[in-house]
Amino acid sequence: MERADIAIIGTGPGGVSAAITSKVRGKRVLLFGQKRLSDKMVKAHAIQNYPGLPAVKGADLAKAMQDHLKAMDIEITEKQVTAVYAMGDYYGIQTPDEMYEATAVILATGVVMSKTFPGEDELLGRGVSYCATCDAFLYRGKTAAVIGYNEESCEEADFLAETCKEVLYFPAVPHEVKVSDRVKVINEKPIGILGEGQAAGVRTETGSYAADGVFVLRDAVAPDKLVPGLETDGAHIKVDLEMKTNLPGLFACGDVAGKPYQYIKAAGQGNVAALSAVSYLSAK
Amino acid sequence: MERADIAIIGTGPGGVSAAITSKVRGKRVLLFGQKRLSDKMVKAHAIQNYPGLPAVKGADLAKAMQDHLKAMDIEITEKQVTAVYAMGDYYGIQTPDEMYEATAVILATGVVMSKTFPGEDELLGRGVSYCATCDAFLYRGKTAAVIGYNEESCEEADFLAETCKEVLYFPAVPHEVKVSDRVKVINEKPIGILGEGQAAGVRTETGSYAADGVFVLRDAVAPDKLVPGLETDGAHIKVDLEMKTNLPGLFACGDVAGKPYQYIKAAGQGNVAALSAVSYLSAK
Repeated sequence: MERADIAIIGTGPGGVSAAITSKVRGKRVLLFGQKRLSDKMVKAHAIQNYPGLPAVKGADLAKAMQDHLKAMDIEITEKQVTAVYAMGDYYGIQTPDEMYEATAVILATGVVMSKTFPGEDELLGRGVSYCATCDAFLYRGKTAAVIGYNEESCEEADFLAETCKEVLYFPAVPHEVKVSDRVKVINEKPIGILGEGQAAGVRTETGSYAADGVFVLRDAVAPDKLVPGLETDGAHIKVDLEMKTNLPGLFACGDVAGKPYQYIKAAGQGNVAALSAVSYLSAK
Repeated sequence: MERADIAIIGTGPGGVSAAITSKVRGKRVLLFGQKRLSDKMVKAHAIQNYPGLPAVKGADLAKAMQDHLKAMDIEITEKQVTAVYAMGDYYGIQTPDEMYEATAVILATGVVMSKTFPGEDELLGRGVSYCATCDAFLYRGKTAAVIGYNEESCEEADFLAETCKEVLYFPAVPHEVKVSDRVKVINEKPIGILGEGQAAGVRTETGSYAADGVFVLRDAVAPDKLVPGLETDGAHIKVDLEMKTNLPGLFACGDVAGKPYQYIKAAGQGNVAALSAVSYLSAK
């Protein structure tokens, strides 16, 4: 496939803003994210402080941003990005079924609000996975546990149920759990991953459940797990005022680039990240 | 008068955004600037990259921001701020006829695009002035020269004509010059201020004009001239990611805080500056 100039990961206000400004500047844009309106934004109460749109409802702002993308003829590539690799003078962007390439990358993935579970960091890649589409095949005829955070995790649990013998679903935060009958919902708060050297199940506040694989399906993946070599500060990517990270050609914006977690701040940073990426492309 | 929590100087997208977020957070806000729509914005072509408002006309975005201020019940104090002084645990904000006080200050003054004229820096306060309202009385019955940049400079020239014997108007950049018959318009490009130790007139590309005082009325005053002790980098105020300057309690956002000069970037930074000011107030 043709290499994009700028790949943008995330379709919140930061990613949308970055995509729009990149397109205005005539760049070939690849925008990865969800086509449906963001759950978080749709559920937001009236937003008081997005200048120019007084007391806009979250759903209306999300819709206005989608319409803006459409007006600019920007497509969303609806694939989960599982890793971003610095390849020298370009970046490789891994998704479950295809590898993409871009000269510059802007991360607008949002922030992981919660800490990792005890055992999660150690067992990642050893039975712990963040991507059902990628790793379902490993658990054919076996038991998979899903620690779920949102509507999308429910869909991924259903997808796992097509392959696995048994799927257990642990809602980690309150959300509407819509899964098929083939998924067993365990309404106990998950507090850790079981296993030594290999994931063996999920510990909850009241019990332990055996599983061959554990899928932790948060809203966002921690950025240093997504991009090897990326400098972070806790849950945030280290950036400067131009939204540059420590990796040349890699930029970040929005919640993942630090507090405050605000729509207009994310949109502003997306603009800056895009223009910095444009400068980076010009300098090459 | 009661001390404000946060004073914001400038009513472009950065200042408006800062005022809105400060008000949302329940702070007493003083917003200094023009009540009329910004010339610069009104003249802007369709703005492609303000997310949520596709291809919005500059005038419509300016109007939407004004409406947002009204919806939030935020008044504009229409006075020129001539200096901001750090007073220890608060700031003194000087205007031609009154001194205001605020615990924190956000500068959103926009950027001075042009360099100072030869002679300007040396003669500032010695016949060179940036404020007609402040200094007109010094030139009663004398000749004043105005180096004008915009509609507002024309109004100030008319104001000077009420006091001075003669007022010469030099348009420094192309703009519609609407002045009364009492002001003499010299359509020659000004290139320097005359005088040694005291301003003596204006030099143009084609001639020299004597005057007792020279008023340079740009869109914005250079920030280090506005705030003694403020660290700058060329025309920009040095800020960090939280929009802090080197002076505790003083923040900056928008064009004056650096490139890119973009509406959405300014609005995003205004939000961050306001929330940093709120944190500063909480910590006190």
